[in-house]
Amino acid sequence: MATDLSAAQLSEKHRTTLDQALDAIRSRAYWSPHPEHPKAYGESAPADGLAAFQALHGTRLDLGQPGTDGWTGGEVSPYGPELAVEYPHIDPDVLLPAMRAGMGAWRDAGAETRAVVCIEILSRISARTHEFAHAVMHTSGQAFMMAFQAGGPHAQDRGLEAVAYAYEEQSRVPATAGWSKPQGKKDPLNLSKTFTAAPRGVALVIGCNTFPTWNGYPGLFASLATGNAVLVKPHPRAVLPLALTVQVAREVLSEAGFDPNLVALATEAPGEGIAKTLAVRPEIKIIDYTGSTGFGDWLEANARQAQVYTEKAGVNTVLVDSTDDYRGMLSNLAFSLSLYSGQMCTTPQNLLIPREGIDTEAGHKTYDEVVADLAGAVGKLLGDDARAGALLGALVNPEVRAHLEAAAGLGEVALASREVINPDFPDAVVRTPVLVKLDGARKFWEGPDAEAAYLSECFGPVAFAVAVDSTAEGLDLLRRTVRDKGAMTVGAYTTSADVERAVEEVCLEESAQLSLNLTGGVFVNQTAAFSDFHGSGGNPAANAALCDGAFVANRFRVVEVRRQA
Amino acid sequence: MATDLSAAQLSEKHRTTLDQALDAIRSRAYWSPHPEHPKAYGESAPADGLAAFQALHGTRLDLGQPGTDGWTGGEVSPYGPELAVEYPHIDPDVLLPAMRAGMGAWRDAGAETRAVVCIEILSRISARTHEFAHAVMHTSGQAFMMAFQAGGPHAQDRGLEAVAYAYEEQSRVPATAGWSKPQGKKDPLNLSKTFTAAPRGVALVIGCNTFPTWNGYPGLFASLATGNAVLVKPHPRAVLPLALTVQVAREVLSEAGFDPNLVALATEAPGEGIAKTLAVRPEIKIIDYTGSTGFGDWLEANARQAQVYTEKAGVNTVLVDSTDDYRGMLSNLAFSLSLYSGQMCTTPQNLLIPREGIDTEAGHKTYDEVVADLAGAVGKLLGDDARAGALLGALVNPEVRAHLEAAAGLGEVALASREVINPDFPDAVVRTPVLVKLDGARKFWEGPDAEAAYLSECFGPVAFAVAVDSTAEGLDLLRRTVRDKGAMTVGAYTTSADVERAVEEVCLEESAQLSLNLTGGVFVNQTAAFSDFHGSGGNPAANAALCDGAFVANRFRVVEVRRQA
Repeated sequence: MATDLSAAQLSEKHRTTLDQALDAIRSRAYWSPHPEHPKAYGESAPADGLAAFQALHGTRLDLGQPGTDGWTGGEVSPYGPELAVEYPHIDPDVLLPAMRAGMGAWRDAGAETRAVVCIEILSRISARTHEFAHAVMHTSGQAFMMAFQAGGPHAQDRGLEAVAYAYEEQSRVPATAGWSKPQGKKDPLNLSKTFTAAPRGVALVIGCNTFPTWNGYPGLFASLATGNAVLVKPHPRAVLPLALTVQVAREVLSEAGFDPNLVALATEAPGEGIAKTLAVRPEIKIIDYTGSTGFGDWLEANARQAQVYTEKAGVNTVLVDSTDDYRGMLSNLAFSLSLYSGQMCTTPQNLLIPREGIDTEAGHKTYDEVVADLAGAVGKLLGDDARAGALLGALVNPEVRAHLEAAAGLGEVALASREVINPDFPDAVVRTPVLVKLDGARKFWEGPDAEAAYLSECFGPVAFAVAVDSTAEGLDLLRRTVRDKGAMTVGAYTTSADVERAVEEVCLEESAQLSLNLTGGVFVNQTAAFSDFHGSGGNPAANAALCDGAFVANRFRVVEVRRQA
Repeated sequence: MATDLSAAQLSEKHRTTLDQALDAIRSRAYWSPHPEHPKAYGESAPADGLAAFQALHGTRLDLGQPGTDGWTGGEVSPYGPELAVEYPHIDPDVLLPAMRAGMGAWRDAGAETRAVVCIEILSRISARTHEFAHAVMHTSGQAFMMAFQAGGPHAQDRGLEAVAYAYEEQSRVPATAGWSKPQGKKDPLNLSKTFTAAPRGVALVIGCNTFPTWNGYPGLFASLATGNAVLVKPHPRAVLPLALTVQVAREVLSEAGFDPNLVALATEAPGEGIAKTLAVRPEIKIIDYTGSTGFGDWLEANARQAQVYTEKAGVNTVLVDSTDDYRGMLSNLAFSLSLYSGQMCTTPQNLLIPREGIDTEAGHKTYDEVVADLAGAVGKLLGDDARAGALLGALVNPEVRAHLEAAAGLGEVALASREVINPDFPDAVVRTPVLVKLDGARKFWEGPDAEAAYLSECFGPVAFAVAVDSTAEGLDLLRRTVRDKGAMTVGAYTTSADVERAVEEVCLEESAQLSLNLTGGVFVNQTAAFSDFHGSGGNPAANAALCDGAFVANRFRVVEVRRQA
């Protein structure tokens, strides 16, 4: 069945895609080779993908990995059903050395071959996007369409973007160079030099529950494309999408003549906590992590033998100063707060609104009016259960429900969360966002006793309408929030050029990505690969951005050999 | 006196140099705009430079820095004389906020303007190379010609190289982009985006005693060119070269219309240890450090708020397997061991020589013969005191002499160190290298009790002729040394293609820079900017290489602002 793939065949097949990706990261114009529409994958793709997903039920995914010492599993869909798939449990003392064995040949293959092998992996994943969509849906709780798009083409885009960055970075140094230094009347000094991109070792990808592929692919492909072996440690509740990814990667590596153990899966028994053990193994030289600030900080402090790339928690803020499209603003914000029940690292949490209200094209609106109108917009957006379910998905785990319930006690509830029934999955926990009014006076966030509730991340469908004394105070609160708590996104609405400049300055100084006056079909919580940076790497929410030169440049080292010529 | 410099004037003046530097880092062919010959600087330059240096004696270098709360000094030349220059002592609570004040305008000036301002600084330093050479000589103990070349043009090259890398890295993302995403039959989604390279904050450069400019310039210029302010904390025994550098930088910044406080100097009272205090200040976001492993490790572990770039200690090894130019090999090694009394981070320490001897074009040579012939080559090279002094310079501090004296007790001395008198500076401590025979059998370096003496860095004019059981054992010892102790350089001599491949493989796997069969006028301990990487950043000797993409990419972050179009 498996046909051998030569490097030349893969270059022939994928070099154009690589070049287009390289163009895109330079121009940062819109581009994607991965279609967003489910119909683009062929007439039978939806049924085939569902059938393939269902066929996994009750199976054991045997990847043929060395050091397999048992089997684990037990994922339960946020929509109710048990996934009933078993995965290999590994003995790192056996697997890690086996993963290193193929690295020499992978290094010697060079940057272009590694890039096109990675693109072949992505292209096979792309062909199975419908199957992956179900896997992402039933581990993350995303609604199907979001699981399809974010877990499929958008994740594949982010993976390809990382491949392009990795290829470009390795190509900045020539493979060979002649060096001839004049010596006046004497003969010049001549050296011939070779430069090789050499991998660091085994890279560890620690996956998250909510976006297993979207957040997992950048690190996975950046490390693999720079010559490293990659061990994927999925979140125990979101194993399947990354297990399938590892399976495809192993297949392609093998067919292309490389050691399949260059990519492997590490799953864990409940409560085993293998990430902590693996992260400090001497073989692990790179770690990519998405998840809680606590464990991200632990990794940064303790996994000192590795380059550590973390995306942790932040407190995302939208500053509302004024607008010339009040309806557009409200509907844009309502969508941003509702999408995937606010379970995105990019969802706004704090809406800073001047206590005296804001100017709009529809006249002045008081703080209370703005909050009430936003509550109305959310209510309208989610008024129909079927539509609400398709936007909200399901709560990914019981902790999110706990956040939601606790938030309602923090202040005056402007919009209560309501339960939505998903007729296809009656066991799913589906909730609309809660909108809570809080006081953002400086005395609260600079007060001596405690930090204001809105200065902590409250992950899930929770938004705070924070009344600030003025736009200037809002800017100060924004700055303090980004500096102390981090932010993956900042939004602002204003018709004032001065306010616009002031919020830009805050974002430039505190290193946060800013979306201004979004009132249409683009939302602050969405970023597009090849064009938008996801995070900045310059505030406490994340120490790396997806994707830039810094994300790839330290995953390999250039080793020079020089000889007298 | 000071003429105002516009960005356009500076671009006109330096854009060609920048472009040439960009070409050079891509081709890695030989290139330098900074002449190596003292005569190239004009007929009166030697006398003028000496006079300028001498005029500093007994002066106070007032840089006009905010937060100056006193004066410190007290440098004594390794050649004897007191320098008698006083420098500002600073109050960081005043200086650090003042350094941040100009960062917004410096950021807004853009990458090209920052690059040409940096090149103007380098070009004024270049014009004063003779003066800087004396300053380097009388702080590092380097002989004049080495202080001139390594402290002058070579250091300026490394600074310019960092500027080129910084410029290129910031130029990879366009300033603006249009983004238009098709929506089938509906109107496309349109966004306009801006991308700005935003600095991280204040960068701290912690200088070293031996190469204040060569090791200080890459970090200084990489940080400045990426928009950061830079606080320079020289080694207390090597302040002057960096103080003059800061003075020039402040002059140029001021004339170009920027805040001179973007570059400042922090000197310390004896025993004050301000590096430790400054390194963990919240304003400090980047640290460049050259020095001991102990403090480098401390910085990496504790200065968690900063990006930390370290060059620490390593154990450099030369594997001697065979040669077809025995005399060339001996004289090349003799020079490498002698230059600046082995006080380079790149000087070989361990020469691994098979116990049974090596094959050469002059017949088989036993281990004892190789060692004796090398001792003879060193002796001959340094037989004449005047020539020896011009090569050796002076011991930089008493600790180096202590290493030298202790080393002689470790094994059979094949070549004793001798005292050389420098008639111009009779107080200088000048010593030829000691060559000590040690046993490199596996039982010693894998033994249960203790580590072999040659597995620690013995900084100074100390070389160990380590007898190994075979070339294969030597390769294993090389690998272990690089992996556990780090190495800035590795050398090897062999006529065997198999051995060559094997040593290359060790260096690729352990990330070390390799020089093969050097028998002429290039030495393992010298690297040339724009072509050679100094260190790899992938073994314990250093966590960064001079200079590559990774050295600059994380000194700034790209902040995106997107708006509906």
